[in-house]
Formats: sequence, structure tokens, C-alpha cells
Amino acid sequence: MPTTTPGRRVTIYDVAREVGVNPSTVSRAFARPGRVSSATARRIHEVAERLGYRTQEPHRVAVPTRSRVIALAVSDITNPFYFGIIRGAERAAHDNDFTLMVADARESAEEERRMLARHLPLVDGLVVTSSRLSDTELRGLSRRLPLVVLNRRVPGLPCVHPDNARGVRRAVEHLGELGHTRIGYLAGPEASWADGSRWRAVREACLELSLTDARVGPVPPTLAGGRSAAKDVVARGLTAVIGYNDMVAVGLLKGLTELGVDVPGQVSVVGFDNTLPAELVGLTTVATPVTLLGETAGRHVISMVTAHVEARERVSILPVELVVRSSTGPAPGSR
Amino acid sequence: MPTTTPGRRVTIYDVAREVGVNPSTVSRAFARPGRVSSATARRIHEVAERLGYRTQEPHRVAVPTRSRVIALAVSDITNPFYFGIIRGAERAAHDNDFTLMVADARESAEEERRMLARHLPLVDGLVVTSSRLSDTELRGLSRRLPLVVLNRRVPGLPCVHPDNARGVRRAVEHLGELGHTRIGYLAGPEASWADGSRWRAVREACLELSLTDARVGPVPPTLAGGRSAAKDVVARGLTAVIGYNDMVAVGLLKGLTELGVDVPGQVSVVGFDNTLPAELVGLTTVATPVTLLGETAGRHVISMVTAHVEARERVSILPVELVVRSSTGPAPGSR
Repeated sequence: MPTTTPGRRVTIYDVAREVGVNPSTVSRAFARPGRVSSATARRIHEVAERLGYRTQEPHRVAVPTRSRVIALAVSDITNPFYFGIIRGAERAAHDNDFTLMVADARESAEEERRMLARHLPLVDGLVVTSSRLSDTELRGLSRRLPLVVLNRRVPGLPCVHPDNARGVRRAVEHLGELGHTRIGYLAGPEASWADGSRWRAVREACLELSLTDARVGPVPPTLAGGRSAAKDVVARGLTAVIGYNDMVAVGLLKGLTELGVDVPGQVSVVGFDNTLPAELVGLTTVATPVTLLGETAGRHVISMVTAHVEARERVSILPVELVVRSSTGPAPGSR
Repeated sequence: MPTTTPGRRVTIYDVAREVGVNPSTVSRAFARPGRVSSATARRIHEVAERLGYRTQEPHRVAVPTRSRVIALAVSDITNPFYFGIIRGAERAAHDNDFTLMVADARESAEEERRMLARHLPLVDGLVVTSSRLSDTELRGLSRRLPLVVLNRRVPGLPCVHPDNARGVRRAVEHLGELGHTRIGYLAGPEASWADGSRWRAVREACLELSLTDARVGPVPPTLAGGRSAAKDVVARGLTAVIGYNDMVAVGLLKGLTELGVDVPGQVSVVGFDNTLPAELVGLTTVATPVTLLGETAGRHVISMVTAHVEARERVSILPVELVVRSSTGPAPGSR
């Protein structure tokens, strides 16, 4: 029900009346992008277009007040695992004319909660990576805005994660072929879904391949965490250890070397993710497709924002591969 | 000039009339934080307080619509140099109840320009790190919002950077003491202020210490960039090279090793920044106080946002130190 008289030039007063806002708000929506909330701006631009409103200055014509924003929340921005994730999410944002915001939970559920509360008003969609929040909290969030869960499974929510089971199985097979009979798993954060998923996969693979499993840790998912487990690995006589991620595996490798333990002569070490540190120290590791993980999650949340796609149950499990380097070798005495 | 009648309860209609917005905007400012622009919300809350307006529900009393936001723009989010910077800026934001947004320019001036344009409407203040934009562009930005320049000097703007000259000088002295007489500098991006500053410092230190300088590159500031310079370093018979940053130095070290060149037996390599990769491969490097750099820049821009501090000419130069590891040794034939 347009309220303008035919033939008369449409003014900001017409647009304002139709939208139900102050004329100055309409003016700001055209002249000062960003000073009007995106919801209001969108309504104003819709109505302006419908009524045929044209601004006086041709260079200020109905541009959107700001591009739409997705946030990528990560558990620790200094973990090199997130490099590829961020790059992939950036690609998805870039291709769809979205802005990517990166937010850091600093390995703390409390900090994650606080950080999300601060970012929610600023963003149109959200990807949470390796979240430490409960399934219930994440489902609550998903009722407030489009949400995709990365590196974790939450029933009822769209999720993207690497094929942990297959990756762990390839690592266990590799160590079994090298003559190791007892496979250690150096555990990461207990609140991490990936940690639980990887430990279960170690147990299952060992069972199927008639090997013994042993759990070490948990330790913080950092170099220092991995290093701190070296003594325990030696004390328990383990000859092969799969780390929760590359950081703990590289830390363990460094800690073992500092104790005078030869890697891989006495102990073989395998990581997870194939990050830069793994490459630098020659770590055998399960390569996760980090860029593709970020890009898939990014594209998915963007499709939820733009097309109001629901896809609540969509789960993407992306393939992994074992990269063999110099940190794994034959079990002592096996050859 | 309050327009309410004494004794009558103040309503959202009073606040709306006073502010000059629609009553629904006032309602949203209290009930749905984030759906109203921060400028409008602030005016609404100011007027509401002045008129003595109280919401019906006690739990919805005048909370700010959103916390204030500073953005930290970095040239390449996957460069470990930024870890500490981000951590420091996070600390500054956290302590002052600000939200930190991290934005990535992906080593491109064009991408940086685009990224800043997208972020400007979302933020209250900005720290640009290792910017590839011109001084003129940065000054233009600083007229639009509080801006601090990190890892670069721009006349007239507040700047924070490490003491490149002293760091380079310590590295050159170290190599001179080891008997090296010709000091190579492996250059990074030509648009980088830090690169120019470090190369000038190499030339000055060599001049003062009666050594010869040699410039190699420029190369991209990555492992691959550093690796690509290995052949040139060998061809020119250099025995000591200072890299623009740790990434090119580690890449050079890897490239030399791949060519069968012994480090430090035949060539000594020094990096800049003291990042995780430097620690992992045993690289001698100039340690920059990354966390302090990020925290100083963050606190400074926040003080400009909150107290409207001008401090246009303030320059903070932070101290560095040389960390000697296993990538540097006596010049061949010097002992």
C-alpha cells in the first residue's frame, strides 16, 4: 500500500512514513552507511526501491549500509590448526561478499560465552570451531542466528568435521605395520569433542588390529602440554604415541629429545592436522583438510543467512590422509 | 529542555520525542540490544537517563546495546608474528570491556583497502599492523576514526613499533664477532615499512662496524619465499644472512639444508621476531616484544575512543633482544 501521490517525486519523508522511522534515519541509511542497524537499513532500502525513491546525489544511491558479517569463533587463535580454517572461511566470505570476523575463545568455555555474547549483535551468522560449550548452549545459540558447528558433532545442528575415525585408523595401521604392539594416545582437552572422537577411534582401531591401547594425559593442547607428557611416556615404556593434535605431538617429540630419548629409534610420534610446526620438525601426522573445513562451514552458514536454508541435520565429514615423515619408525627390537 | 510534565511517569514516547526517533526504536534500544545503531542507542540511553525513564521489566534496564569494538587489522593472519600481537590486543580489549575483532589483509594493499572499508562501520577504533597502504591513505582513515599504526611509522599518527635499528645492530655485531665480514640481508615486501627500516639498519651497522652489506631478494615474507632465496645466497658466496622475519629465515635455512649447505657450518642465518617456528628449528633471532606491541597499541586506541585522547604524535618504540640459538656460528675459515 504505497502512500505516495502518482507523479510526485518520492522524498525521504515518504520512505520514512512507509517504514515507520524518523526521516533522519532514512537519510542516514543512504548517506552514512553503518550508522543505522542493518535490519532497519534493509527495510529502508526495500521500501525506497519499491516506492521508486532516488537520492539527489547519484553516487549515494542505495548502497547497502554495511556488508553482511559472519563470525568464525576459534578456541585458540594462536593454534596453527586455525590458519587454514580461517583462510577457507575467508574465501567463502570473499566469494559471497560477506565480511569475516575472527573471534578467539582462548581455550576457555567462560571466555567463549563472553566472546559470543559480545559478537552476536554484530553478526548475521556464526561458525563455532572446537567449541567448549554444551550441546544445549549451542542449540540455544542456533535459535538466535544461523549457526554451523565446526570440528564437532552436535545432534540437530549442521556440523562440519574431519574424518577422525579414518585418520586415526590410518595412523594405527601405520604403527602396527612398523611392529608396534601398544599404541599410546596423548589426550587433549576433555571438553573437546575431537579429543573424545579420536580416543574412541584409537580404541576401536586397536581392538580390530589386535593391538593394545594406552591413554596418556590429558594435557593442554599446546607445545608445553605435549612436552610435559614425555616423562610419563618413557615411564610407561610406550614405543608409539598418537597425539591429540600436532602441537602436543611436537611438544612430546621435543620433550623426549630433551630426555635423551631417540625419536623414532625408541619412540615413534604421530600428530594430527598437518600444520606448519609438523612440517618444520618432520612429524608424521594425519592431514586434515583445514582450508576445506573452513570453506565448507563458511559457505554453509552464508547459505543459511542469504537463502534462509534450514538444513539443520546436515553433517559434512571431510576426508583426511596420513603424511609419513621422520618421526615414525620400526618398533625397537622388531627388526 | 525536558518536555515531560512533572509527576507523570516518563514513557518511551517521551524519550522518542526528545531524541527525535520512532518510539519503536527506543523500545528496541532497551529490549533488543544490537538492533539499533550504537550512536542512536547511546543518545537514547542518555536522554532516558536524563528524563528519568524506567523500563517496566527491571532486568531490561538501560544496558548498553553492545560493547565497543576495536579492530586489529593484520597483513597475514597466518604469520605467527601476529599471535602475540593478537594476544596483547585481546588483553587490552578485555581489561577495558571492549570487543576485539581481527581482520586479515592477506598481504595485499587492495585486499586491505576492501577489508577496512567493510570493517569501518562496525568498529569504534582501529589498529592497523604492517599496513601496505600509503601514508596519505592512513591519514585519511585517521580522520574517520581513532587509529593507531603498529609496526610502522607514519608522520603525524600515533605509532607503535619495535626498535628495529637496535635489533639489527645486535644481530650484525653478533655475526661480526663470529668472524663474518659480509652481511647479507634477505629482503621482505618492498611496501613494508619494517623491511625498509631493517635494511637501512643493516647498512648503517655494517658501515659503523667496517663490514660489507649485501641485499638478497625481495621475497614474499613466507617459508616458500625464504626457501627460494637459498640458491642466490650460495651463488653470491654469503656466509651470513639476516632475514626480514623468522619465516623467510626459516625458509632460507630449510632451502640451504636441501641444497646440502651446512647451517651454521657454511652459512649463518638470523631471523627477526622470535616466533614459534624459530624456536622449533633453533633459529638465532631478534626477539620483538610481540605481546607488548599488541597491548600497547590496543590500550592506546582504546584511550583515544574512550577519553577522546588526541596524542597524534605519540610514538612508542619497544625494546628488542637477540636470542642466540644454533643457526649461527663462526665464519668458515675464521677459526
